[in-house]
Amino acid sequence: MLRIESTSNDKIKLAVKVATSAKCRKETGLFFLEGLRLCRDAALTGYEIETTFITDSAAEKFSEDIDFITSSSEYAYLISESIEKKITQAQTPQGIFCLCRMKKICHEINFSSGKYVALENIQDPANFGAILRTAEALGISGAITFQCCDIYNPKTQRAAMGSALRLPVIKSVNLCETLTDLAKKGMKLYATTPDNGADKITNEDLSGGIIAVIGNEGNGVSDEVFEICRKVTIPMAGRAESLNASMAAAITMWEMMRSDG
Amino acid sequence: MLRIESTSNDKIKLAVKVATSAKCRKETGLFFLEGLRLCRDAALTGYEIETTFITDSAAEKFSEDIDFITSSSEYAYLISESIEKKITQAQTPQGIFCLCRMKKICHEINFSSGKYVALENIQDPANFGAILRTAEALGISGAITFQCCDIYNPKTQRAAMGSALRLPVIKSVNLCETLTDLAKKGMKLYATTPDNGADKITNEDLSGGIIAVIGNEGNGVSDEVFEICRKVTIPMAGRAESLNASMAAAITMWEMMRSDG
Repeated sequence: MLRIESTSNDKIKLAVKVATSAKCRKETGLFFLEGLRLCRDAALTGYEIETTFITDSAAEKFSEDIDFITSSSEYAYLISESIEKKITQAQTPQGIFCLCRMKKICHEINFSSGKYVALENIQDPANFGAILRTAEALGISGAITFQCCDIYNPKTQRAAMGSALRLPVIKSVNLCETLTDLAKKGMKLYATTPDNGADKITNEDLSGGIIAVIGNEGNGVSDEVFEICRKVTIPMAGRAESLNASMAAAITMWEMMRSDG
Repeated sequence: MLRIESTSNDKIKLAVKVATSAKCRKETGLFFLEGLRLCRDAALTGYEIETTFITDSAAEKFSEDIDFITSSSEYAYLISESIEKKITQAQTPQGIFCLCRMKKICHEINFSSGKYVALENIQDPANFGAILRTAEALGISGAITFQCCDIYNPKTQRAAMGSALRLPVIKSVNLCETLTDLAKKGMKLYATTPDNGADKITNEDLSGGIIAVIGNEGNGVSDEVFEICRKVTIPMAGRAESLNASMAAAITMWEMMRSDG
């Protein structure tokens, strides 16, 4: 394996830029992953890995997994610990890093059954990732995203623990249109609200094809989207003003899946 | 109001130490809050506020709330923006900070009904706070904690959005003993596990007095605790290895409250 010696090597500079800049990710079509689990998940899920960077100690410690990851990579380099320090976004780096190619974004909507979550304007990468992780764990069919933060942000990918690589994610450019089209295909549309006047989610028939919209952390679901959805609320007893977005999403997705048994 | 001019003032040094050191919090019995909402919540909930620090712009902007908070404080000082920068733990500080006295820790266990969550060895302050927030929102009666990270960590307090100040929290020094005592009083004990062989939580009768144990982020509930609890699992369909601790806690607490609702 080739070795990169200098922190000012072009590949290293590129890795840092891809990790830290959404603009650079968009321009290059690359995204940055780190940690054994995420890098292995990317290879397992069929992402094209452009470059893998490995420290000597990681190469020794994880040799079998590293063989698998590098065999899926176009380029692989050994790096020093000072280079590791430069490219890591984690507090305790594991010594393995990948630059992967994004898959083609899916804008096409073509389903009439299943349980989906639609995320409108989720802005916190940790929330975004946590919702995707929970969605996959509960068996949700996929996510529709609209004006959310970058799914390829390393914080989103880390919080999703690989789910952001596997769960079908459709990026909508006009959420009202997307939802209206899907309603015509037979999907029921729900939007969650902390408003106690809305119908309780526990009283709804959540069988069949459903899309549940989760809104922005501060402002909730937009008025335009509320207009075309049935408003439902998670009944709350306590004094906390509301559940946070990822908790509300978890309980909503759980209720959808619960109803199917 | 008196004004502190120097970042090396003793009160300012104390505030920074209380905010950043669990040891200092333990020694002084003080904890640090920041932001209008948390400081107001502390005053509203009857915490003794030892000192309030306010920037000039916050004093102007939030004058009514600040009057209320300072009237509940022994000391109140105006501070400059450079001092604000020194004591804040937030990315966008709001210019208001309090040193509060901890309430007496409750070790006493005396209940035979209600829905409680027991947190064993939760180590991430953001998870800890998020669970307390969700618990209060869903109407959970209280939390039992055992070997968790510091509830007075500013990150826990921020994630809890005031719930850590209001929700009854009992600190156990021996979780097995505490749970055994409560079982004798008639409480049913459940412990959550990602193990698919355990009984599904949806098949359980969750009426009456219940304590649900949520385990450590990495290792789950300890063997000793599992031995005295009924193991239940949140059925999962997807490939994600498990829900994260705060999501598992949210769904478990939701199921407990749902059954009474």
